[in-house]
Amino acid sequence: MKNHFEKDTRNALQAREHAQWIAYGPSVFQAARALCETGILAEVERSAGAGLTLEEVAGRVALPLYGVRVLMEAGLGIGLLLERGHRYTSTKTAWFLLHDGMTRAHMDFMHDISYRGMYALETSVRNGKPEGLKTFGDWPTIYHALAHLPERVRKSWFTYDHFYSDEAFPAALPLVFARSPRRLLDIGGNTGQWARACLRHDAAVEITLFDLPGQLATARTQFQAVAGAERVHFSEGNLLDAQQELPGGFDAIWMSQFLDCFSEPQIVSILERCQRALAADGRVYILESFWDRQRHALGAFCVQQLSLYFTALANGNSQMYRSSTFLACVSAAGFEIEQQHDGLGAHGASTLLVCRRRT
Amino acid sequence: MKNHFEKDTRNALQAREHAQWIAYGPSVFQAARALCETGILAEVERSAGAGLTLEEVAGRVALPLYGVRVLMEAGLGIGLLLERGHRYTSTKTAWFLLHDGMTRAHMDFMHDISYRGMYALETSVRNGKPEGLKTFGDWPTIYHALAHLPERVRKSWFTYDHFYSDEAFPAALPLVFARSPRRLLDIGGNTGQWARACLRHDAAVEITLFDLPGQLATARTQFQAVAGAERVHFSEGNLLDAQQELPGGFDAIWMSQFLDCFSEPQIVSILERCQRALAADGRVYILESFWDRQRHALGAFCVQQLSLYFTALANGNSQMYRSSTFLACVSAAGFEIEQQHDGLGAHGASTLLVCRRRT
Repeated sequence: MKNHFEKDTRNALQAREHAQWIAYGPSVFQAARALCETGILAEVERSAGAGLTLEEVAGRVALPLYGVRVLMEAGLGIGLLLERGHRYTSTKTAWFLLHDGMTRAHMDFMHDISYRGMYALETSVRNGKPEGLKTFGDWPTIYHALAHLPERVRKSWFTYDHFYSDEAFPAALPLVFARSPRRLLDIGGNTGQWARACLRHDAAVEITLFDLPGQLATARTQFQAVAGAERVHFSEGNLLDAQQELPGGFDAIWMSQFLDCFSEPQIVSILERCQRALAADGRVYILESFWDRQRHALGAFCVQQLSLYFTALANGNSQMYRSSTFLACVSAAGFEIEQQHDGLGAHGASTLLVCRRRT
Repeated sequence: MKNHFEKDTRNALQAREHAQWIAYGPSVFQAARALCETGILAEVERSAGAGLTLEEVAGRVALPLYGVRVLMEAGLGIGLLLERGHRYTSTKTAWFLLHDGMTRAHMDFMHDISYRGMYALETSVRNGKPEGLKTFGDWPTIYHALAHLPERVRKSWFTYDHFYSDEAFPAALPLVFARSPRRLLDIGGNTGQWARACLRHDAAVEITLFDLPGQLATARTQFQAVAGAERVHFSEGNLLDAQQELPGGFDAIWMSQFLDCFSEPQIVSILERCQRALAADGRVYILESFWDRQRHALGAFCVQQLSLYFTALANGNSQMYRSSTFLACVSAAGFEIEQQHDGLGAHGASTLLVCRRRT
């Protein structure tokens, strides 16, 4: 995979411009978001061709002219709007903000989950604690908080999660079922999305969802009218507790976007417990997004940015890993990589690791 | 002056990338800032050539490896760092963040003044009130709050202010003194920077600083060991009160980066009072940054972003104006533009308007 970060691609003038974009990143974001949320951007897009004046837009969205003007003028420099003869039209970038599911998921996650807490990033780095999580109350990690957060915030979290794991499920299913596992353990099964995909994919597989009590309570409700639900079992526990063992005898253990929620020593400890939970010839299947396994620099950028959420909000000690950092943990737990499949999912962001006991 | 915003300069791929930069703007900013504040970026820059490993940097800044790694890996995608063989070096963009006064002023202002309040930008637009100002307490405008804010926050505010007005003073002085004014009224004189420049520039001019009591209290202390301080006079008042008249008989009235703190009706009302305060052949001199009078698109972008601060934090009803919006107010108050000087100051961001009574 190409190293996207070997060369400085900007000349001095471009670097100076880029520095200002960094410096104004927060207000750029909030202006762009407000242009979406107020309906301004959608109105302008609808007027394609002739365009609209500030006054016309203010009338259509029923907002004060002043605020509409400040946002729309900022939208010019941000690259969302164009203007000629006091008539505004929208750009291609605006199209992505309005219609691209991934861009919207990123923006909602940033605003609803990360924005306020990100103010405490530097302190979080210094203290090794998610100091930004205080914006949601007094929780040790965001996983404890999740079930108790407002519906809108929960929705933003789960939609984002979807783009970084669930979209790779169709590609991962045949790879996992190539060995026809009879008993599969789904660790950190979340809402049960993967488990339901397995039920549909294989008529015999028995699945055990292992997760925190709060998460499982949500997951259980999602299996009510699902065919094959009798093949799903639930096992509660918290793997942060090093004494917490897993149930045993599984042909396959599946962890999707799960181990990035843990520090390196914790990952090693969890994988050691997976060793004990595997049947004789079982395999551990790990789906992760590694920033150095992205085809494009933009993919790496997005994954690296997600790491900052773990630092400032989620738990203060995990991240979206570089593959070498992560593979060192896999090895330390006594596994070796049998297969590595990069570029899974519609955005090619995910890697599936197939791990077997090192002999 | 060129219209920088007539054409969509991005193709679809670039637009998709730009959309992600917008979506992650807040975490890009906080990561960049933390890389500066922790000393990481400076350490890497110092190592130019060979570069440093994550472990070496963590040792030098005495911070946990985990946090250093998350920040530095994010720094790759942000374009501040490069990596080859696990050794990190810094980019040209990093140089601007570390050494360019304007970039640093923008970043400090964003973090200390705007970041938290900018979360309420959409609400501020809807309500026409600076809803983000609540992050500093219960104040009607930021000007009321300023004298009471923590020293660090005040410093960030005044440093930023400097880059948008004071740096144009040397260019503006000969233009204002071309008519040899004997009595000059400095409205919104702030810390008295302009007044001191006038005292040095002209041995006879008498200057009256007009401002809010809090601001004048600060300004007075700045004249203590200044030559010619006996030619400076102070006049207190709040021009938001439409009944508040100005003292009279001035040859020149000076307002630098002042009228952008007011709404259009307020600007008209203040300029009408300037009419009454001017001597027979007096002039009003207005120094402002208009986003449509910037030579480069980057300049326009910065000025437009500053507008959002007025909306969400300063007062909820003013902005950095487009020149046509502003000139309409000047005209409505009975003035005409005698001269317009664009591109003043080291960054060419300021315009000086020389206004005389319309006959």
